Amino acid sequence: MPTRTSDGGSRAPATRRRFLAAGTAALAGAGAFGTPAVAADASSDAKSKSGPAWSLGLTTYMFKEYDLAETLAMARRVDVRRICLRSNLLPLDASAKQVAAAMKQVRDAGCEVYGGGVIYMRKPDDVGRAFEHCRAAGYTLISASIRPDLLPLVEKQVRAHDIRVAIHNHGPEDRHYPTPQTILEKVRRLDKRIGVCHDTGHTLRAGVDPAEATRACGDRLHDVHLKDVDARAAEGHSVELGRGIMDIPALVDALRAVNYHGVLGVEYEKHMDDLLPGLAECVGYARGVLDGMARPV
Amino acid sequence: MPTRTSDGGSRAPATRRRFLAAGTAALAGAGAFGTPAVAADASSDAKSKSGPAWSLGLTTYMFKEYDLAETLAMARRVDVRRICLRSNLLPLDASAKQVAAAMKQVRDAGCEVYGGGVIYMRKPDDVGRAFEHCRAAGYTLISASIRPDLLPLVEKQVRAHDIRVAIHNHGPEDRHYPTPQTILEKVRRLDKRIGVCHDTGHTLRAGVDPAEATRACGDRLHDVHLKDVDARAAEGHSVELGRGIMDIPALVDALRAVNYHGVLGVEYEKHMDDLLPGLAECVGYARGVLDGMARPV
Repeated sequence: MPTRTSDGGSRAPATRRRFLAAGTAALAGAGAFGTPAVAADASSDAKSKSGPAWSLGLTTYMFKEYDLAETLAMARRVDVRRICLRSNLLPLDASAKQVAAAMKQVRDAGCEVYGGGVIYMRKPDDVGRAFEHCRAAGYTLISASIRPDLLPLVEKQVRAHDIRVAIHNHGPEDRHYPTPQTILEKVRRLDKRIGVCHDTGHTLRAGVDPAEATRACGDRLHDVHLKDVDARAAEGHSVELGRGIMDIPALVDALRAVNYHGVLGVEYEKHMDDLLPGLAECVGYARGVLDGMARPV
Repeated sequence: MPTRTSDGGSRAPATRRRFLAAGTAALAGAGAFGTPAVAADASSDAKSKSGPAWSLGLTTYMFKEYDLAETLAMARRVDVRRICLRSNLLPLDASAKQVAAAMKQVRDAGCEVYGGGVIYMRKPDDVGRAFEHCRAAGYTLISASIRPDLLPLVEKQVRAHDIRVAIHNHGPEDRHYPTPQTILEKVRRLDKRIGVCHDTGHTLRAGVDPAEATRACGDRLHDVHLKDVDARAAEGHSVELGRGIMDIPALVDALRAVNYHGVLGVEYEKHMDDLLPGLAECVGYARGVLDGMARPV
């Protein structure tokens, strides 16, 4: 019953025991579009006793019914300050002025962009346009879906701009990249900066175990979209983390095993017209699993 | 990016691996106002590999800005179906007809009442009135704040009605019951059905470790209000579970150690006029910690 209630600030206290050391390392590992003020905020970071540092992030396809201001307000409310900015919030053809304004808006909200995407590259012109946008926006990591014959062209751009590319798997309907394993086959001879953005929900929908897929990625795992679904089948739907079929602790074990240092991008698509409650539940669940697994044993 | 999205149902799939066995046992242990249809729903239950079964519940002081219909809608949205009904949702002087209507409303929403309270007993008349209400409502567990000299009278009622009483600690401002330990001193010679409703947030505000207080309770722990706060001081405020200072995995270890079989009543009082997002985050966190701690090691 009544505890004194706060008067509305959504920020976490700086007193969490477990995770204080993780922020900066996680950001560096994620190739983040870093702002030191945010890097010092450990509230959305997680560090296991024996494993690497991770930070939570938010993917932004799920905010497609909202604008950037609303998205940032929700990010603040759940206290996850890292977002992967997608074209629904910042179009690929945005002007330099529009890009700068968006980045300022993100920073002013106490947030940061850790990457861009998912960006689609279906023809040669798309590649140049995508990298030009990413360079202008300052992304050091992009999540992408790329027609396989364009990969040599992408590799040239990666080398020219030192931007990491994480190819996103989209499940059984994705002709080229249903699972992380199918991405690995196509990138294994390419620059190491080209790897996988592992969408765990789509992996499950393709009938593949996300922990096993994570281990297969090894050091090619550049980004994670952490999503739970309600069936290991093409018909699977996105649900709140922990309410679906994914064994999330096993996934975390696999992330440790491959020494993943990037961002865990929470993704939730069940109530996209009323996103915040389910998103908050997902964020809470992710923090809880990491805390539960990090306890001294 | 886009996973097929569900068309809005908030129920969890019946496919969670870890917790399917826990429902009925947890209900029996909690002395729940059981409805078999809900008891079979395992989505808000948790069972550790080695420990007892718990189920999540919701306390209802935090819904004081909402009516019963709104409360039940939120309970469904976060898929926690057990509530501890307080006077803000069902007044102590409700008629038999009003009580029956409220209970039907709860059942019709697919929810159940696992207890009543917190109920205050400050003078002798309050005791009879409270138990009459609880008997009429069918509560088998009540959370209460009771003037210590009324405890013998309460014990008589407990024996007459076989209703368990969990005395609630309210932190440093509570003259009689700041912490679980101060409750134990006063109930140790009474019927075992009189015990503690441990509000972890108030325990922290009194400067006491909730895990230690839990262990002190032993088999007198009859109910738990799971609340995190931002400071181990009287000035501490309720925050989302996992964002405050409480070591929740350590609390879970303590609950295991005392073989707690009751409900974990999630409580959150930070944004009481816009409760759902923070409540959802708390529920997600609680599920996540239990899942994280339950993984095979």
